[in-house]
Amino acid sequence: MDSFLNDAQRARQRDFREFVARHVAPFAAEWDRAENLTGDVVARMSEAGYLGNMLPEKFGGQGWDMVTFGLLNEAFGRESAALTDLITVQAMVSMALLKWGTDNQKSRWLPPLARGEIIGAFGLTEPTGGSDLQALRTQFTDAGGGAFRLNGQKTWISYAQTAGVFVVVGHAGALPVACIVPRESAGVSVEPITGMVGYRAAGLGTATFTDVEVPAANVIGKPGFALSHVVPIGMQFGRLSTACSALGLLRACVEESVSRAATRRLGNAWVGDFGTTRAMIARMGTDLRAAELLCLAACRATDEREPEAFTKTLTAKYFASRAAVRAADDAVQIWGAAGCHESAPVSRYHRDAKLLEIIEGTSQIHEELISRAFLEAEPKHAR
Amino acid sequence: MDSFLNDAQRARQRDFREFVARHVAPFAAEWDRAENLTGDVVARMSEAGYLGNMLPEKFGGQGWDMVTFGLLNEAFGRESAALTDLITVQAMVSMALLKWGTDNQKSRWLPPLARGEIIGAFGLTEPTGGSDLQALRTQFTDAGGGAFRLNGQKTWISYAQTAGVFVVVGHAGALPVACIVPRESAGVSVEPITGMVGYRAAGLGTATFTDVEVPAANVIGKPGFALSHVVPIGMQFGRLSTACSALGLLRACVEESVSRAATRRLGNAWVGDFGTTRAMIARMGTDLRAAELLCLAACRATDEREPEAFTKTLTAKYFASRAAVRAADDAVQIWGAAGCHESAPVSRYHRDAKLLEIIEGTSQIHEELISRAFLEAEPKHAR
Amino acid sequence: MDSFLNDAQRARQRDFREFVARHVAPFAAEWDRAENLTGDVVARMSEAGYLGNMLPEKFGGQGWDMVTFGLLNEAFGRESAALTDLITVQAMVSMALLKWGTDNQKSRWLPPLARGEIIGAFGLTEPTGGSDLQALRTQFTDAGGGAFRLNGQKTWISYAQTAGVFVVVGHAGALPVACIVPRESAGVSVEPITGMVGYRAAGLGTATFTDVEVPAANVIGKPGFALSHVVPIGMQFGRLSTACSALGLLRACVEESVSRAATRRLGNAWVGDFGTTRAMIARMGTDLRAAELLCLAACRATDEREPEAFTKTLTAKYFASRAAVRAADDAVQIWGAAGCHESAPVSRYHRDAKLLEIIEGTSQIHEELISRAFLEAEPKHAR
Amino acid sequence: MDSFLNDAQRARQRDFREFVARHVAPFAAEWDRAENLTGDVVARMSEAGYLGNMLPEKFGGQGWDMVTFGLLNEAFGRESAALTDLITVQAMVSMALLKWGTDNQKSRWLPPLARGEIIGAFGLTEPTGGSDLQALRTQFTDAGGGAFRLNGQKTWISYAQTAGVFVVVGHAGALPVACIVPRESAGVSVEPITGMVGYRAAGLGTATFTDVEVPAANVIGKPGFALSHVVPIGMQFGRLSTACSALGLLRACVEESVSRAATRRLGNAWVGDFGTTRAMIARMGTDLRAAELLCLAACRATDEREPEAFTKTLTAKYFASRAAVRAADDAVQIWGAAGCHESAPVSRYHRDAKLLEIIEGTSQIHEELISRAFLEAEPKHAR
Repeated sequence: MDSFLNDAQRARQRDFREFVARHVAPFAAEWDRAENLTGDVVARMSEAGYLGNMLPEKFGGQGWDMVTFGLLNEAFGRESAALTDLITVQAMVSMALLKWGTDNQKSRWLPPLARGEIIGAFGLTEPTGGSDLQALRTQFTDAGGGAFRLNGQKTWISYAQTAGVFVVVGHAGALPVACIVPRESAGVSVEPITGMVGYRAAGLGTATFTDVEVPAANVIGKPGFALSHVVPIGMQFGRLSTACSALGLLRACVEESVSRAATRRLGNAWVGDFGTTRAMIARMGTDLRAAELLCLAACRATDEREPEAFTKTLTAKYFASRAAVRAADDAVQIWGAAGCHESAPVSRYHRDAKLLEIIEGTSQIHEELISRAFLEAEPKHAR
Repeated sequence: MDSFLNDAQRARQRDFREFVARHVAPFAAEWDRAENLTGDVVARMSEAGYLGNMLPEKFGGQGWDMVTFGLLNEAFGRESAALTDLITVQAMVSMALLKWGTDNQKSRWLPPLARGEIIGAFGLTEPTGGSDLQALRTQFTDAGGGAFRLNGQKTWISYAQTAGVFVVVGHAGALPVACIVPRESAGVSVEPITGMVGYRAAGLGTATFTDVEVPAANVIGKPGFALSHVVPIGMQFGRLSTACSALGLLRACVEESVSRAATRRLGNAWVGDFGTTRAMIARMGTDLRAAELLCLAACRATDEREPEAFTKTLTAKYFASRAAVRAADDAVQIWGAAGCHESAPVSRYHRDAKLLEIIEGTSQIHEELISRAFLEAEPKHAR
Repeated sequence: MDSFLNDAQRARQRDFREFVARHVAPFAAEWDRAENLTGDVVARMSEAGYLGNMLPEKFGGQGWDMVTFGLLNEAFGRESAALTDLITVQAMVSMALLKWGTDNQKSRWLPPLARGEIIGAFGLTEPTGGSDLQALRTQFTDAGGGAFRLNGQKTWISYAQTAGVFVVVGHAGALPVACIVPRESAGVSVEPITGMVGYRAAGLGTATFTDVEVPAANVIGKPGFALSHVVPIGMQFGRLSTACSALGLLRACVEESVSRAATRRLGNAWVGDFGTTRAMIARMGTDLRAAELLCLAACRATDEREPEAFTKTLTAKYFASRAAVRAADDAVQIWGAAGCHESAPVSRYHRDAKLLEIIEGTSQIHEELISRAFLEAEPKHAR
Repeated sequence: MDSFLNDAQRARQRDFREFVARHVAPFAAEWDRAENLTGDVVARMSEAGYLGNMLPEKFGGQGWDMVTFGLLNEAFGRESAALTDLITVQAMVSMALLKWGTDNQKSRWLPPLARGEIIGAFGLTEPTGGSDLQALRTQFTDAGGGAFRLNGQKTWISYAQTAGVFVVVGHAGALPVACIVPRESAGVSVEPITGMVGYRAAGLGTATFTDVEVPAANVIGKPGFALSHVVPIGMQFGRLSTACSALGLLRACVEESVSRAATRRLGNAWVGDFGTTRAMIARMGTDLRAAELLCLAACRATDEREPEAFTKTLTAKYFASRAAVRAADDAVQIWGAAGCHESAPVSRYHRDAKLLEIIEGTSQIHEELISRAFLEAEPKHAR
């Protein structure tokens, strides 16, 4: 893949890997056990500009391109899917605001988001609704005086526990609305979700909004825009980030499998001498090469505003997350019983990988969306 | 499958399911969290005769046939793979002793094993050796006076934490030896293994034997018999038990998937209305029917002392464990994010299932053994 | 599987295998090339009673049970899927008539069908409609004088080329009707279908019915019965027969793979020495054992009129046909380039196998039906 | 993928597609039936410079880069795998000569190869040896007078039937030798291979060399070079060509599946409305995007003489051929019975696809080679 990168991208990739080797790799297992990002990693990421990497410089961001954003996510995904999810949600909130926010909203919120002083969280999924956006029950009702009264509940929110601001999606009458809701608003409460199989350090939570008063000026875009404009931007960044995170996890599985195969003996043979081990490594290694290219192509298409950017992102996320699940499954198999113990990183990869196939749209939803893209490209299609 | 059972077997199957519904299902998640079988379940299993179910009545066992043994394992496997593993190891130790033990060994050890007063554990795998039995480093050296001195280390031992007696396999000079080693012998120490991805309540441990003196009368069979006679009996029961445990977990995945598909709405549709959900349910349901029959056939072949019992057990374990992994993967997918949380049983099934493909021989070792059976049946094979 | 058979079934199985070894195996490749059952095999099958094997003795049949019927199909499926399809269609027509025909219809048609003097064919699928039975366009209109006038076209009919009688399904007004239509009726024309990838000798054809006058007495059951009563009987036998035929093809793939692996050298190693070859053989061998049992269970459930017979037949057909496709794919891989040449039987198995996943309902339709059976068994299901 | 091409490459891609639409698509089914490239397509390809596309202009070639070579193969592979194989073998012979031939050899053979006046064929595989190159039995013995006497047999040679020159690989004593053998040399006979499942029009044949006298000046490189230098160049081009041919076939399967799904009704629904159809299309469509990028990356790496070009070519061939097999399998399923008839192109794709997984090294050999590349990159690997 390297031959498709320019020098600046390659230089940043090295930086990312160094950062991750120093500040992420040694602690990722501990965060997983503690269900918490202990230590100063978030502060260091803020300092390095990683939490505002895709925002323009005028808002205090780095103004990096999407390919670089992808490399950042991949580097972090190599060691900690849970921590990478922080980059995911920060990007979802920041980029939705950048694209559709008012000037006031942008000048108020983007600089602290860019500096990592505030963590943003995206409140979309509801306890009863899964990924179906038409069925959202969260309500914004007119509170008079240019304000809305917000009632509803959002769950499976990454980094809800530490978020300083939420983008909450609901309805105002019949119109879908996306609205900025500061964490400290009266009536906002957050319940942590613990006991996840994977992504244990991603600060998941359920946020309940009870008669929360929010100024109408906090609506992003305008009422009616939420599902057609705001959410798609968030999802596009969420999927790209997750695709590249999956790529990192896939790389981790390949490296751990190769390492085990090359250094572990079973009787008179190396684990890597067995034809079935080799077949597993060949498959995951080939998937790694394919996932690298699909992620790169999706990032580049987004940078170049190609119309295919949406579909390319879907295919990258769909392929990389499924390949990561397969690879983690095989990596545990190559490690044997040791791979089922927390002392082996592959045991964590195996737990985290499954989430990759569910967040930002399950694989089944991706199958629906990808097939639709292919079918709509078919002129003979009658519908 | 029911049409292949006789009345006694069917009646016991009902008993097993009632026992499990009352004494296992409500507690399995708690055991998993605690990494410990809290409560009185083991005592109740002893009382019900389940821990000696396959031993003859004259040793205090139930004298049940293998088909009934399979039904017992399946019923427990439906709710707790970790607890089922207790039946596995008890059977491995008991049946190896029944088949190859001396009269003294049998009258000394079988009654307390049959009554569940003592838990037996099988010490085979070593830290450096995986499943390769030729490379065992554990040594029995002549201690004089009709005794051996035992030194070595065994790991990944199920129920090592609570075992009262070990069957330890090692070498006396060049001869492979399997020997009874009471837990309370001087020089035996057991280190618990915690932090497993699955089978968390199975009391895993590493046992270290330092200059342990064991009477030569404790050798099972005779020196040289261990790998050719004793271990195969243990493995046969271990595999049958694990195959049926996997069948239970597979059934659990089908039932939980069907339940979710039938009761959870996504917008205007049930989860079970989607073609991809239905395809997953059809596949796991078909696998369930196949696994039921393969397990039954393996148990029956063992009851009837068919020469094919060995191969049938391999195919049952190989198929059922792999089908369980696939089904657990799909069940989580059908449950979505909720399926990754500890409140959903499928999240535990997903973690436990992976172990099924590793214990009692990985899927790759099964591929080697099964293909060998097919190749050896080929008269044209030159080797 | 043998241990589940009684002596009579085992004896017949030996007969079937001898017949097939003598009269089928040497000619199957030639039939495939010629797209025709050259020679006297059909006459010999008639003579042996195979074409009426499931009909009662009072109609000249053998009165064999379904397990025996399954063994017959499997034995033929081992060598020629196309020829086995003759047993399939003969059973579909015969059993639908036996179950729902009038006394006159039975005494007129069953004896010649039982003796193989007449071949029956089932006209269900239409050029525009695939497997969707509600959309049939074939019409039976009142011709006066107790007769219908039949117009329509049926395609993909196995053995249409040699059939003496058709069961044609269409509509009389709004009522679905299944009707006996002799081949020699005025207005019946049959166009052979050549150039199929597999099942090349199965005499496929498209039958066109132009103003064919058929007596109302030829309606099977009564108008309205066709889709609810007549077709399901045909499909049940069609699926059982196809499932067992797939089982035979799967066995063929295993045997051919083992034979190649055991006798072919690549440099200094046997093909069967490679871990990936062994993994393929283990997988297909395990699938073979599972498919044997699923087919047996389905046949037995039909014999014993279990309510689960329908679902068991679906799972047997679904599993066996898919396993056959996988096995054929791997068998060709084990044979290498030689396996892609007509001189290697696996090349024919590979072509025939794909049809198994399509006829008597595609795998996708089976997924729909099997999942429905599991979902309907779920009491919580709201629909 | 288009965004990774330059303008010249894109323009040529359009030319290739036009050529193929006019001169290949309308005839591919007929060639398959006839097992022969009827008509003037080879002459037109020569005229268009396609048979010498990768040779330098000074030898009469087009001097195109490898990316363009890949696009050519993909465009042809979209319609006819058999015809694309002509480009494959011509490239294998031409490029091996270009790289390792003497000046005399190059000036004698490259111009007619570049103009397509002569077809070159690669004689490597022997009847007894599969792909194992160490075990070649073909012998070059000293005939005196600066000549060798060649005896041996080579099989599965693409375009052996029409080749004007062979590169034959064998041994001279202990040294592996690759040698130019003109078709018209005394003692060369070619037996056509008919009856292949796929690649039926690829002019396959077995060449027998009986006491053929060849000048020592025809040895490519020098004795000892054959397996280490000459064959690898041929294989590299063979694999790249086959990978891109597989990509074309994969694209064909996607397009045919989408077309069927979009235009075929089953009752009240389109085939493309079913969730399982959509899942199949999403999978094959995603594989298509991945295969495009892997092929591009492999071609580009070859153009840029990256050390990873070898491994990238392996992954491209391995992934694309396996994806093509899966896609063809699903495409037939989407087409149903109609997809098993020669009138549907997917029936041919299904037969051709299987060969893609075998030629230029089976998938199993690729697994061995790819895993070796990953294992060798691991510094801890002890071997």
